[in-house]
Amino acid sequence: MRESYLTHLECSKCARTYDPDQPHQLCSCGAPLLARYDLAKAAAVLKKDDLLQRVPSLWRYRELLPVRSETNIVSLGEGMTPVVPLKKIGAENGLKQLYLKDEGIIPSGTFKARGAAVGVSRARELGIKVLAMPTNGNAGGAWATYAARAGLKACIVMPTDAPMITRNECAVTGAEFYLVNGLISDAGKIIGRAVSRYGWFDASTLKEPYRIEGKKTMGLEIAEQFGWSLPDVIIYPTGGGVGIIGIHKAVKELQAMGWIGEKMPRLVAVQASGCAPIVKAWQERKGDSQFWQNAHTVAFGINVPKALGDFLVLKAIYETGGCAVAVDDAEILAAQRRLAAVEGAFVCPEGAATYAAALKLKEQGWLHGDEKVLLLNTGTGLKYPDTVQVSVPVLEPDDDLPEA
Amino acid sequence: MRESYLTHLECSKCARTYDPDQPHQLCSCGAPLLARYDLAKAAAVLKKDDLLQRVPSLWRYRELLPVRSETNIVSLGEGMTPVVPLKKIGAENGLKQLYLKDEGIIPSGTFKARGAAVGVSRARELGIKVLAMPTNGNAGGAWATYAARAGLKACIVMPTDAPMITRNECAVTGAEFYLVNGLISDAGKIIGRAVSRYGWFDASTLKEPYRIEGKKTMGLEIAEQFGWSLPDVIIYPTGGGVGIIGIHKAVKELQAMGWIGEKMPRLVAVQASGCAPIVKAWQERKGDSQFWQNAHTVAFGINVPKALGDFLVLKAIYETGGCAVAVDDAEILAAQRRLAAVEGAFVCPEGAATYAAALKLKEQGWLHGDEKVLLLNTGTGLKYPDTVQVSVPVLEPDDDLPEA
Repeated sequence: MRESYLTHLECSKCARTYDPDQPHQLCSCGAPLLARYDLAKAAAVLKKDDLLQRVPSLWRYRELLPVRSETNIVSLGEGMTPVVPLKKIGAENGLKQLYLKDEGIIPSGTFKARGAAVGVSRARELGIKVLAMPTNGNAGGAWATYAARAGLKACIVMPTDAPMITRNECAVTGAEFYLVNGLISDAGKIIGRAVSRYGWFDASTLKEPYRIEGKKTMGLEIAEQFGWSLPDVIIYPTGGGVGIIGIHKAVKELQAMGWIGEKMPRLVAVQASGCAPIVKAWQERKGDSQFWQNAHTVAFGINVPKALGDFLVLKAIYETGGCAVAVDDAEILAAQRRLAAVEGAFVCPEGAATYAAALKLKEQGWLHGDEKVLLLNTGTGLKYPDTVQVSVPVLEPDDDLPEA
Repeated sequence: MRESYLTHLECSKCARTYDPDQPHQLCSCGAPLLARYDLAKAAAVLKKDDLLQRVPSLWRYRELLPVRSETNIVSLGEGMTPVVPLKKIGAENGLKQLYLKDEGIIPSGTFKARGAAVGVSRARELGIKVLAMPTNGNAGGAWATYAARAGLKACIVMPTDAPMITRNECAVTGAEFYLVNGLISDAGKIIGRAVSRYGWFDASTLKEPYRIEGKKTMGLEIAEQFGWSLPDVIIYPTGGGVGIIGIHKAVKELQAMGWIGEKMPRLVAVQASGCAPIVKAWQERKGDSQFWQNAHTVAFGINVPKALGDFLVLKAIYETGGCAVAVDDAEILAAQRRLAAVEGAFVCPEGAATYAAALKLKEQGWLHGDEKVLLLNTGTGLKYPDTVQVSVPVLEPDDDLPEA
């Protein structure tokens, strides 16, 4: 009999607490709410070896997730994405222990499936009927997918520039679906007005407390997959920042349970030079970021000019001795090609940015050659065909091939 | 210490045997070779519970795979794809126990990754340098990907009509890559001439013995995921047929090991009405199929006018009391939309064909409502954006949403 050890919601800024079994959005102070658990009880009941008997999905960490009843779980088998060694490309760059966690191998093809699986499951459990959200594409695709499975209505608004295939996902799953001539921040304002007017539930990044619980499972899996000893450095592409906040939360929860040691992995936030508010704030040693004007990058998922959780991302970086680094679009696209050609890893531009950042940090001496470094690829390159140039000869059936 | 219990290669028609540690293509009689193992020894050494300690990839079945040395394994974490219950859509159609095994959740987004992972690993082990193959797209993408990781050269020829995104995969991984104005059979002839001329290794469907060993792992996983008791019926989209032949082979190997009972799942081959040579042969109770003229279907992966392994597919159907069934493109596209909208499963057209076939077989009374029925989705819908109609309103930032 597995149960959730969720106890309450707590404001990430003012520490005010809330009843977790009622729907909540932000704290009255305007900051995100975080789910808290009875970790001592969880540690007393759950043993690491118990996990071996469970299916390889994020639901293996059931006790550390917010869903009360098994019957509310909305799952397509998401989680336990592979950790792939990058030996060849690591050796090329003097990084002896370079790894990639590949979140392309998940329903809907991106890590957004995690937040959607847990967020939609909990929304169903709390009796919510309509979920509304702005998106840079992938989150919308994932939430539309899981909402369909749950029988909930989803209303999605995404920028016209978002990756084309995410439109197909929203359309095929039957979501209420709109484009906006603008950025995700414009989409967010449209959703905000509709939420006030119609009483929908706002599933925007960090405006409800459970998406991050799904993302947290990346951190839990990394710990389990590395034998309950974390890598020295985790490099993460950062837009809204929920992934890095979630991994940080996971590490702290596992430490509280006594499942891992006190040493923190240094968390690195990667942004694109065309949209780098977190990097600027970190360089200026500030606690939060400012709206980035004229944001633009090929790595569309991290084209977020101002994140609601910026202060939590920065906290995760400062607390772990991490850093924030910006890479150009040209570096991102070169990294994408190189990872595919050398390692067979066809990653999305956001994921490629982590490799470009690793190169830069190694050059700067911030990364050492013998450290264990994990790159987080947030999605499959298959969803971004436009980033790959294809020029291919067309043969007639009687033509012959040249020698390879 | 895990090892392969591979003993020899055996012709699927004339039973002639070959040394497995030399590169081989077809038998001298022209039929495919199959890998054989010392299953008694494997059963004596390996226990079902040993698997629980292993990572959730197809390499957990190491003893039943042909690769001798761990160092030759080329892996991106493929395998142990989820089995997802389809309760809602099952109930709609009077099928109480309907499941989907989702091969979209795998590197390169299709089941072709399995054959490529095992085939490329073994090719590397046998010292092969250049792999050449015709493809309807997805196999080419997968083999190009794994060849890049292995450091082997891949030469791929695909029809101009193959799904666009598979071109990106071949291009980004740096394969020698060509299109042909024709069908996969035309691509096969071009490859055949180049193989003779340049001495490349021919990795065409069933022309080497190890791709099928990768596909076989679908059957091993199904057995493990259903608690070592197979579903009553497995419905599979059939082009080259390696998937269904592989599952049949897996079931027989597990029976020989005593890991499952004697009852066979009925294997169903699904084809498109526009290209249904196996269905025609089965209707006429023949042992092999004839070349299908003017083949055409939206489910491009099963647009195979004549499969080299047709007689093995038909044998699998006859031996298990299965059947072969054809569905129209319109039924396939409707099934794709319905699976996405009701279950959140965005499958490829080939995968959707299995659901269309299940509806037909239920109507005909061939499927019973209380049987355990498994649909095999061979790939993610994300790779086929053209199959989904998108018509979406574009808002300006000041616009408001209507009520959902």
